[in-house]
Amino acid sequence: MKVSIPETIEEWNARGSEYLPGYLGFNFVMVTPERVEAQFSVHKHLLAWNGFLHAGSVVTLADTCCGYGTVASLPDGAVGFTTIDLSTNFLGTALEGVVACVATPAHKGRMTQVWDAEVVSLKNSKVMAKFRCTQMVLWPRD
Amino acid sequence: MKVSIPETIEEWNARGSEYLPGYLGFNFVMVTPERVEAQFSVHKHLLAWNGFLHAGSVVTLADTCCGYGTVASLPDGAVGFTTIDLSTNFLGTALEGVVACVATPAHKGRMTQVWDAEVVSLKNSKVMAKFRCTQMVLWPRD
Amino acid sequence: MKVSIPETIEEWNARGSEYLPGYLGFNFVMVTPERVEAQFSVHKHLLAWNGFLHAGSVVTLADTCCGYGTVASLPDGAVGFTTIDLSTNFLGTALEGVVACVATPAHKGRMTQVWDAEVVSLKNSKVMAKFRCTQMVLWPRD
Amino acid sequence: MKVSIPETIEEWNARGSEYLPGYLGFNFVMVTPERVEAQFSVHKHLLAWNGFLHAGSVVTLADTCCGYGTVASLPDGAVGFTTIDLSTNFLGTALEGVVACVATPAHKGRMTQVWDAEVVSLKNSKVMAKFRCTQMVLWPRD
Repeated sequence: MKVSIPETIEEWNARGSEYLPGYLGFNFVMVTPERVEAQFSVHKHLLAWNGFLHAGSVVTLADTCCGYGTVASLPDGAVGFTTIDLSTNFLGTALEGVVACVATPAHKGRMTQVWDAEVVSLKNSKVMAKFRCTQMVLWPRD
Repeated sequence: MKVSIPETIEEWNARGSEYLPGYLGFNFVMVTPERVEAQFSVHKHLLAWNGFLHAGSVVTLADTCCGYGTVASLPDGAVGFTTIDLSTNFLGTALEGVVACVATPAHKGRMTQVWDAEVVSLKNSKVMAKFRCTQMVLWPRD
Repeated sequence: MKVSIPETIEEWNARGSEYLPGYLGFNFVMVTPERVEAQFSVHKHLLAWNGFLHAGSVVTLADTCCGYGTVASLPDGAVGFTTIDLSTNFLGTALEGVVACVATPAHKGRMTQVWDAEVVSLKNSKVMAKFRCTQMVLWPRD
Repeated sequence: MKVSIPETIEEWNARGSEYLPGYLGFNFVMVTPERVEAQFSVHKHLLAWNGFLHAGSVVTLADTCCGYGTVASLPDGAVGFTTIDLSTNFLGTALEGVVACVATPAHKGRMTQVWDAEVVSLKNSKVMAKFRCTQMVLWPRD
């Protein structure tokens, strides 16, 4: 499967609209090979039942940003990528307002890419989470 | 905030029904202090737009299982918990069928709990992901 | 570089004797494709200056076990491996006595292997650390 | 146990000289609450027997830097810290020359600190590893 890469931010948002990123209400603001930005507004369906933002909402936002950046960075001839692993440290939460994520590459190799993402509450500008993942670049089988 | 703990599996499912676990269609089968089991059926809204299960769906399932297990394991007097960090290794994916998670505690201390979870595709019994997280137990402020 | 694989436990220990595993006093007890065991005795040079075992000693023991297991598990034609990432959760420490590690594979693929290791204090049989790493299998360039 | 904090860089190096940091030849260049720097020269006893730098050497350097930074950052009244967990992504290696680490805090809370470290080969200025850890701050028992 060769991934076709969206060219505008509208196309990036449209591509995911029927999938998890759209279902959770993520809005992508910028997708480039060197920086990806997206955000969501806090809604009840993104919370855990203790009333705090669910760790899964935060991780999914960060992972999606890093995945989009990886797609936008695939070397010529690569046919896709798969996430090998991810880790997240949680530093704070948000009860309302907009949550934003910025993802940047830490490494772009022929076999793997490593991406970092930081999730921030725009209400108070505090960092809520720091995320890192490793993507394996997929090549056509001979 | 003192967490009140559901007593039946129906109550566990009802508690999360309007929050992220319900929104993603998670079904809890067992919640005990020593083992938590839950599952979802693969639907389009749990996928990334490459057609594979989104890493966020897998992580959210595992994280929710571990969180419920932590709540069910809180020591007397504790008032809640917060996830400090999590990591996930992805070993495979699923395109259809039921995805199930089993979470078990690796450590239950007064200050922290560490939980492991394994996510399996029931279609082929293959392990899709291995997850580990650290929870900080919250105590009342004097 | 094609790795030549030791055949006896004496050879495994001899191979590392002038390198970090030998320098830290690691003793390998078993190296097989499905299980690796090694241990060290707590000495001052393995501690941090607060008197507790240094996290680096624990991680190095676990990482070495997983690396040896990966070498013993390399598929035909592979020429080596490299560690992509690792994570460790610390659950306890040891002030004296023997510290032992058991490593087992969680995944053996053509491109990657994932290994788990558990580090235990033999003095009280308590788990001190849980470790997980991802290895990339290296193949000859065409 | 109340940790007494070294005041000069000579004291920081002296304090660890008989422990793992000294045994591995780490040289601390700067220890402040906001930045820690240390380095080592590549020697055979820091390698794995495939001739590459052992992951354990890299992790131990980074972990020690973060630990010293945590000590230098302990809030008034705290009596020490313990590492809860760490993760490392490996991006490259070094066969010779000097390897340097810079650690900086990502979060300093009353209960936990999160530190980031980056390990670089000074020979080619390439990032070899990115490290992150969580420290729990220890308080006196009432």
